Amino acid sequence: MEQRTEIADLGEFGLIEHLTKNAEIQNASTILGVGDDAAVIDHFGKQTVVTTDLLLEGIHFDLMYTPLKHLGYKAVVVNLSDIYAMNAIPTQITMSIGISNRFSVEALNEFYEGVYFACEKYGVDLIGGDTSSSLKGFVISVTAIGEVAPDQFVKRSTARKGDLICVSGDVGGAYLGLTLMEREKKIYQENPNIQPDLEDESYIVGKLLKPEARKDIIEFFASNQIVPTAMMDVSDGISSEVLHICKQSNLGARVYEEKLPIADASRKAAFKFGLDPTVCALNGGEDYELIFTIAQEDHDKIVLNEEISVIGYITDLEEGVKLLTKGGNQYDLKAQGWNAFNS
Amino acid sequence: MEQRTEIADLGEFGLIEHLTKNAEIQNASTILGVGDDAAVIDHFGKQTVVTTDLLLEGIHFDLMYTPLKHLGYKAVVVNLSDIYAMNAIPTQITMSIGISNRFSVEALNEFYEGVYFACEKYGVDLIGGDTSSSLKGFVISVTAIGEVAPDQFVKRSTARKGDLICVSGDVGGAYLGLTLMEREKKIYQENPNIQPDLEDESYIVGKLLKPEARKDIIEFFASNQIVPTAMMDVSDGISSEVLHICKQSNLGARVYEEKLPIADASRKAAFKFGLDPTVCALNGGEDYELIFTIAQEDHDKIVLNEEISVIGYITDLEEGVKLLTKGGNQYDLKAQGWNAFNS
Repeated sequence: MEQRTEIADLGEFGLIEHLTKNAEIQNASTILGVGDDAAVIDHFGKQTVVTTDLLLEGIHFDLMYTPLKHLGYKAVVVNLSDIYAMNAIPTQITMSIGISNRFSVEALNEFYEGVYFACEKYGVDLIGGDTSSSLKGFVISVTAIGEVAPDQFVKRSTARKGDLICVSGDVGGAYLGLTLMEREKKIYQENPNIQPDLEDESYIVGKLLKPEARKDIIEFFASNQIVPTAMMDVSDGISSEVLHICKQSNLGARVYEEKLPIADASRKAAFKFGLDPTVCALNGGEDYELIFTIAQEDHDKIVLNEEISVIGYITDLEEGVKLLTKGGNQYDLKAQGWNAFNS
Repeated sequence: MEQRTEIADLGEFGLIEHLTKNAEIQNASTILGVGDDAAVIDHFGKQTVVTTDLLLEGIHFDLMYTPLKHLGYKAVVVNLSDIYAMNAIPTQITMSIGISNRFSVEALNEFYEGVYFACEKYGVDLIGGDTSSSLKGFVISVTAIGEVAPDQFVKRSTARKGDLICVSGDVGGAYLGLTLMEREKKIYQENPNIQPDLEDESYIVGKLLKPEARKDIIEFFASNQIVPTAMMDVSDGISSEVLHICKQSNLGARVYEEKLPIADASRKAAFKFGLDPTVCALNGGEDYELIFTIAQEDHDKIVLNEEISVIGYITDLEEGVKLLTKGGNQYDLKAQGWNAFNS
């Protein structure tokens, strides 16, 4: 029988001690970690970058098909992605959770296994947090802290006319993974005897449940003397992010449908579900790729990196934000992405 | 008629823009605030101090008797208190909220009025956050960031034998305020026509609903060359905090009942409710005072500050953590404070 330890048996302080006892410090900048009123960081003349995300059960994740270990991993990674999107290196996180007593200590152990796995993989330290009971639903709040050499951070608002618009990896996969899981959930709810076979779909399921932050791209920039003119991460979909960069930079853009990087597995899944792969790529969220603009003269520096696709370029404000389809038509790019307040 | 604007009318990005448009930057260290993937801070050779707190409706606050403006103020202040408890100065906060659609934009405006009021009063910048819908209940997550001169931060674990244990202000008031509000809530639920008269109880109600962080004490330390040997803020009650300092410092303590600072208004309220003021002072939480230890030779430096009371001293580990009562009895000090997982 699986062991079940009640959280109340440990108490609040016992639980915090239990969950953080394996927190190993990897960064010299972490002066003081878990266990006091606050943590202390020394970034030695670098600038500190801070981001925070709230993840709520039923809104951002469904525990019916999200293993707790994956959830812990993803909760960390989505925050690190925001730090990389500033051209910075994440160094520390805080993790706060609110949990109802339907969770056992063993379940939390699984969640924290994922948290520590992500911390180790990305070289960040867990330096604090808050642990509370919740009346209903699992509440996760992560703050990530990073460092960047003075004024080397990259904003969204600094794209320039003529810049190339680039995207890392491929997009649309996480949305297709979500579509698959929601379908399987419905089938299971109608007939619990049908077990889903997800083996063929491991790519899109992985993109949804275990996304990675593009540390490699930031390292590639550093070792190739590339400083993007503007950058952000793809959490709400390419359309939404291009519109953000254009709005904040006060410019327009032209995006080519045929240039959108879509994985074969995503394309196949889209056809299977009767969806247009382009729509998934433009409007599907949660890919956690990086979208950035670079000067045209930097094109040679990125052309050999197969993880980077040029999808268009920046234009004048008056030209609007346009999608050029494979058929030669031109449409206004619209953000139809995930909107938490309408869903 | 009061105006009610639906959050969905603004959309997620519109809401964030609306709520943060008045965010004024007060700290030179805030290089980049709200509106990008992350914020950027430059602490110019100082160490960065980070703390975070999760506040959940039904666990940490009851909207039946907590005005949203006060809640916004308190959500900020309780985090700043943790920064001061490190002997540091808070400089920035991030604020994440999860809200159900029973909240209108006007209600959120009130909440943020309190947030900005606290930011202004304590000189901190709101630099980021996350805004999400929640299925149920109001979720608040705040991260506060501060700065301290290298290695001048004060931990809990560094008290020394013979040190004096000191407390700022007075304690027990917030617990009595909570007791009062819970009683009034019950009366109201039984008979909605009875309106509570809280005027006589403004002190304890204020301690509960609008606590202050002890910025003044940290400034007093700085201008009088005092560095406490250990310090933390009083969020779970004096008993719990003395035990934390002793456990982490591997020492014992002796606390004198007659030295506990209890306001007249708190004492009166305790008697009215048939409670022992000492028990309220020891075990009532949420006072957000500072508890700290100082070397005996520093006694002269604090003796004229009426906002600081010496309540006991640090002993050897073997002597345990003891309470000496007014009647001359000696008991083990026990933490009976608020425990989120048993309540």
